Amino acid sequence: MNKIEHIGIAVKNLEESNKIWSLLLNTEPYKQEIVESEGVITSFFKTGESKIELLASVSNGSAIEKFIEKRGEGIHHIAFEVNDIDYEIERLENNGFVLINKSSKKGADNKMIAFLHPKSSGGVLVELCMEMK
Amino acid sequence: MNKIEHIGIAVKNLEESNKIWSLLLNTEPYKQEIVESEGVITSFFKTGESKIELLASVSNGSAIEKFIEKRGEGIHHIAFEVNDIDYEIERLENNGFVLINKSSKKGADNKMIAFLHPKSSGGVLVELCMEMK
Repeated sequence: MNKIEHIGIAVKNLEESNKIWSLLLNTEPYKQEIVESEGVITSFFKTGESKIELLASVSNGSAIEKFIEKRGEGIHHIAFEVNDIDYEIERLENNGFVLINKSSKKGADNKMIAFLHPKSSGGVLVELCMEMK
Repeated sequence: MNKIEHIGIAVKNLEESNKIWSLLLNTEPYKQEIVESEGVITSFFKTGESKIELLASVSNGSAIEKFIEKRGEGIHHIAFEVNDIDYEIERLENNGFVLINKSSKKGADNKMIAFLHPKSSGGVLVELCMEMK
């Protein structure tokens, strides 16, 4: 794991949350992107070498909609940058971690991604992500 | 806000969680510290320019014990590094954020800290922290 690539935060309304996080971080979001496969619209802020990613549902029944129904707005996941996502998936599986995605898939922000199930990572939804070449 | 200084993760058992997070991050914790004022023992891992801070309760009725009773183990807060914590407290209050600590106090890891209430920061418990000189 090279660094915290981003922290994903589930929000109800992207415009309102963009205002809150712009004030809090004292910087504007630098991009917005729809990830159709996940049914979300995302907004990104830079902070040091990491990003804050706001996630709002744009599709009924999306994972973010369900998360907010159950737990309210808040931190949804931590994403770590890795050099070789296939190697990390295998390494973590061999160490007893439960992968939600047994192989990597295309995510937001030009990344290949895979999620670890929170039940094997101390209640934390962990994303692995690797920049696509 | 300069960077993500650390992510605080509430855990039930520090030894067991040290094992999980050592495997996950593929690195060992580099220090452990009791913060008596908060009733917690903490363990720190490096990841890039940020840290993962595990927090276990060592005192009945601590904030971490209550958090775990209510929500289970998981991400407790995000801490951002600031250059001038008094300036940031004032800036955020003037922008409508609710401070749990109206002035900074001594935290773990040689830092002055202050928390924002999650109700004004999109359900996220945000810590400001500044290295003590």
